[in-house]
Amino acid sequence: MRLRNVKGASELIENCDYVVKNYNEYKGSFNKLFNNKNSLHIEIGMGKGDFIIEMAKRNPNINFIGIEKYDSVIVRAIEKLNDIYLPNLKLIRMDASVIDSVFNKEVDVIYLNFSDPWPKARHSNRRLSSTNFLKKYDNIFKSDMKIIMKTDNTDLFEFSLIEFVNYGYKIEYISLDLSAEQDLDNVMTEYEKKFSSKGYKIYKVVVKK
Amino acid sequence: MRLRNVKGASELIENCDYVVKNYNEYKGSFNKLFNNKNSLHIEIGMGKGDFIIEMAKRNPNINFIGIEKYDSVIVRAIEKLNDIYLPNLKLIRMDASVIDSVFNKEVDVIYLNFSDPWPKARHSNRRLSSTNFLKKYDNIFKSDMKIIMKTDNTDLFEFSLIEFVNYGYKIEYISLDLSAEQDLDNVMTEYEKKFSSKGYKIYKVVVKK
Repeated sequence: MRLRNVKGASELIENCDYVVKNYNEYKGSFNKLFNNKNSLHIEIGMGKGDFIIEMAKRNPNINFIGIEKYDSVIVRAIEKLNDIYLPNLKLIRMDASVIDSVFNKEVDVIYLNFSDPWPKARHSNRRLSSTNFLKKYDNIFKSDMKIIMKTDNTDLFEFSLIEFVNYGYKIEYISLDLSAEQDLDNVMTEYEKKFSSKGYKIYKVVVKK
Repeated sequence: MRLRNVKGASELIENCDYVVKNYNEYKGSFNKLFNNKNSLHIEIGMGKGDFIIEMAKRNPNINFIGIEKYDSVIVRAIEKLNDIYLPNLKLIRMDASVIDSVFNKEVDVIYLNFSDPWPKARHSNRRLSSTNFLKKYDNIFKSDMKIIMKTDNTDLFEFSLIEFVNYGYKIEYISLDLSAEQDLDNVMTEYEKKFSSKGYKIYKVVVKK
């Protein structure tokens, strides 16, 4: 997701306690950041943060880290956190491509919500569900490896299923029309709210290794 | 698929050369039926036969066997074959549940087209893509195991993906909207023609072990 430049974004990020600036110091020991041994769930490409903030509210015994590349997007999440205290939520501004240099054998669940589909074949390695990224995830997962993906993009979903399965993941759950499932536990992203209300199909898959 | 009784159906079947009556004699050597060593593709639940007849016409170097349970359905296929000579096509009237007592290590590809979804959970074992059937297929496949499935039923497709993958199949191809693919090689079944023309989504998956 790209947004226009937000004035003072970098200052806002700098002053926000939710944003971990020295994240390189925590590699392999992110639990110290939260002062507990709870499991760690990360969302790669958290966008404006609706999903990860709501997940953190609903699951105080799970640690969440939202990862986002763009200053102009992460500030939208920061604004939503102004008057909220969520000790189990942190944000990191970084590019996902270096994720395996930031985490080490400590992540329990990865969420990929409405990721950039990178439609051109020559960019397929940039898709967050490509084998290129699955290899990186191998290094950051603790023991069980679980990826929970949602998208409205048919091509990306087809591609992702093939990548996950042929890389050795099994399918724990799949929905080809999430809106029809009436799942009250489903936490919606900004995109999802917009697309669902327009009647578009939302796909979801939970894969495990 | 159930149809009303067709008068004289059993006589028509009895007199049709396409229908193999003594199929039990060919277990493990169906190639003798065709007098060649070409690969063998079977369609389980061929319905009125449009798909398998067209496939046999287009692929003279592949042997095809269409399997159907109901007299009243198989006669519809027989009627279509009245004036056609297809030495690479045979039909068998039988219940799929005994398939592993009919074939033995000789099938290359199984087609499952618009199979009965058996929507009730307690009937899930009757679905042709259930683990119950995948175990039977293990015994009839030659070496490579390839299942090609099409359906318009979302629940059945979700179920089938989980069953295939968790049983060890990899995904070679998947489409969540076959009509949008503009695949000129796609041979349509009767159902598919009807559903596609109404704009319904058709799912397709090719899995391989």
